[in-house]
Amino acid sequence: MIRFHNCKILDDNFDIIENNELWVENNTIKYIGEAKDSLFEREIDCKGNLLMPGFKNAHTHSPMTFLRSYADDLPLDRWLNEMIFPMEAKLTEDDAYYLSMLAAAEFVSGGITSAFDMYFYPNAIAEAAKTTGFRTTLCGAVNNFTSSPEELEKDFEKYNCCCDTVTFRLGFHGEYTTDISILKDIASLSHKYKAPVSAHCSETEKEVDQCIQRHGKSPVELFCDLGISDFGGSLFHCVHLSERDIAILKEKDITVVTNPASNCKLASGIAPLSRLDKAGVRLAIGTDGPASNNALSMFREMYLATALQKIQTKDASALVPEKVLEMACRNGAYAMSSNNDCLKEGKLADIIMIDMDKPNMQPVNNIVKNIVYSGGNENIALTMVNGKILYEKGNFFIGEDIERLYKKCAQITERIKKESNN
Amino acid sequence: MIRFHNCKILDDNFDIIENNELWVENNTIKYIGEAKDSLFEREIDCKGNLLMPGFKNAHTHSPMTFLRSYADDLPLDRWLNEMIFPMEAKLTEDDAYYLSMLAAAEFVSGGITSAFDMYFYPNAIAEAAKTTGFRTTLCGAVNNFTSSPEELEKDFEKYNCCCDTVTFRLGFHGEYTTDISILKDIASLSHKYKAPVSAHCSETEKEVDQCIQRHGKSPVELFCDLGISDFGGSLFHCVHLSERDIAILKEKDITVVTNPASNCKLASGIAPLSRLDKAGVRLAIGTDGPASNNALSMFREMYLATALQKIQTKDASALVPEKVLEMACRNGAYAMSSNNDCLKEGKLADIIMIDMDKPNMQPVNNIVKNIVYSGGNENIALTMVNGKILYEKGNFFIGEDIERLYKKCAQITERIKKESNN
Repeated sequence: MIRFHNCKILDDNFDIIENNELWVENNTIKYIGEAKDSLFEREIDCKGNLLMPGFKNAHTHSPMTFLRSYADDLPLDRWLNEMIFPMEAKLTEDDAYYLSMLAAAEFVSGGITSAFDMYFYPNAIAEAAKTTGFRTTLCGAVNNFTSSPEELEKDFEKYNCCCDTVTFRLGFHGEYTTDISILKDIASLSHKYKAPVSAHCSETEKEVDQCIQRHGKSPVELFCDLGISDFGGSLFHCVHLSERDIAILKEKDITVVTNPASNCKLASGIAPLSRLDKAGVRLAIGTDGPASNNALSMFREMYLATALQKIQTKDASALVPEKVLEMACRNGAYAMSSNNDCLKEGKLADIIMIDMDKPNMQPVNNIVKNIVYSGGNENIALTMVNGKILYEKGNFFIGEDIERLYKKCAQITERIKKESNN
Repeated sequence: MIRFHNCKILDDNFDIIENNELWVENNTIKYIGEAKDSLFEREIDCKGNLLMPGFKNAHTHSPMTFLRSYADDLPLDRWLNEMIFPMEAKLTEDDAYYLSMLAAAEFVSGGITSAFDMYFYPNAIAEAAKTTGFRTTLCGAVNNFTSSPEELEKDFEKYNCCCDTVTFRLGFHGEYTTDISILKDIASLSHKYKAPVSAHCSETEKEVDQCIQRHGKSPVELFCDLGISDFGGSLFHCVHLSERDIAILKEKDITVVTNPASNCKLASGIAPLSRLDKAGVRLAIGTDGPASNNALSMFREMYLATALQKIQTKDASALVPEKVLEMACRNGAYAMSSNNDCLKEGKLADIIMIDMDKPNMQPVNNIVKNIVYSGGNENIALTMVNGKILYEKGNFFIGEDIERLYKKCAQITERIKKESNN
């Protein structure tokens, strides 16, 4: 059992509990309360710092770390077709394994304890999760070019019982890359398993316009009409939505996962989070992949989520930090159906320690506002996933030497550049 | 003499020099070149990491650290009148000294080596700069309520020769807080000393509208017509500009200092940086004060500067990272007239070391893009100002124990809250 003491604890209502301690047994929070005697493997003096639930990265593409700072300053369609796809064509499953581990290292160093991860090598990501101990919910990535509804079903059955830090959700890439017949098959799968379905949706104006041209309706309407959304699910980006779309998202209990940094960087626009929030739609936050962000930092995303809403609505009170933290911690857990949404006895031990002992957190007028408005990766003192410490004070415990991992990923990147003649 | 070796060096063109070393003697860069023999006080093995010029924070209000996370989610006018002013009324010069040191700690931990600092206790900031060793250009803050043109002139003469890390520039708060008679006196001072003048300008739509109502012209036009801009200077924020304003800014060789995080947080809008850049106006970047941001991180500002331009122009190629880094390093130095704009022999030794050995910087496809698109304070391994190391691997060397400083600033904040009945 691990004992955290001399800590502040962020409770379920985002209030701060003082003078309590938190114990972890195996992968679970065993006890939160006043000090009492027990036997511990390890006792961690938090020195007054804050324990809180880890951030949930509700949309990413981990293996794309090799494309960081490789294809920048281009709009989404040119970025994908001219730069990303030719490089991805040379990526092997073995490459994706190492590149996913690099992402996991970045995640845990920034207080992210789980990710909803969509890529065409689910096995590589699952193996990386097993090696590192990082919690991963794989998202199906079916489209016209990779995978199929049959493979999706196989993956669904395989990865939902492969290990206790990996799960799998039905999913496809997006409307603009997936034929209607495939979408119909995915809807059938969803009904067969009563399972939610996730996908990219309404990221750019062009995507929505072309969907309307093709099908006479928006992507959200199309997914709804095909029965894809009957068991909920998550839709990623959702930048360009009609009022009708928003009503459907609420009615179908869909989680909208916003990716503000990516939407800025690819000039896609600002998602209407305040409107969605007012309509009662559940919101979560993701970093998107490292090629379109380019960091994998939930601090960045949290700040952007609220800052861009203030710009969009011309209202400085839009999307307050308490709401943003709920998106980043609790709603992301919902999107991945994980029992790690808050710090409570019986919850999974996905815990981070926020180092308040840095100038950007001083003075402490309001801890939640400090985290959202001035926090950064430098404030992550410790990251625990499933009861195991994967990151502590700059050191990684992810089943692979970090320097060797950097070197391996650099080699992979150089080889792919050479092979794709870029 | 201090020797940095085994480093990459970002040169004047933002190209990377490999296999060179950099020597610092007293407060100056003495040598950049191949290894050769000499005697050194200290030799620093950079382990392949990057040396680059420090970031220049071209607009801030350091003593406002006590208001971090205190007054959030309000528009500028209510934020100022209801929350900020009543608290500031209780602030003493001694308080401002400690609070400025806290800002300096945050600056150096984020790779900022100098700041253009506007506040009504210049002496407190100057003393904090002397204690910490941080480089500060004070900016006059005259308005109807504090200081006067006479005091401004005294400050100008006093602080431009008080020590080698402190300078002073003529300045006033802004049009909306300063009567025309005072503005005229400041114009006369500017002409007397042939000195540039700096001020807040066109931050909100309301400010511009009210200026037009009062004077029949925009703040930029008014300053120009009064002769305030005849020797250049810096204007802070510049969110709401007409084409005529932009032409004047170019003609008068004024540096526009953008504060994107603050402009988001107070819902002021997005400054038209791409339009300004195309018109040939010099751009620099500032964090603004910690009450309106709330971090003091140039990494955040750099990312926002480019990300918001991509949103505003709907063009993913807007304001590329190379341009942003020029704003953050070179143009900020110009705004403060400091000889620290790049790493070259004879330049002031205001140097930072970027830790590339973190997941967010891997792989290294492009160092400049990595810094702007995925960098964060966690990548600052070392910060040197005026030849002295003020921050290294998490440790501060700022003439005051950091824990004692946090405690002191917390006490000040609590006292002021009590006194202002907030």
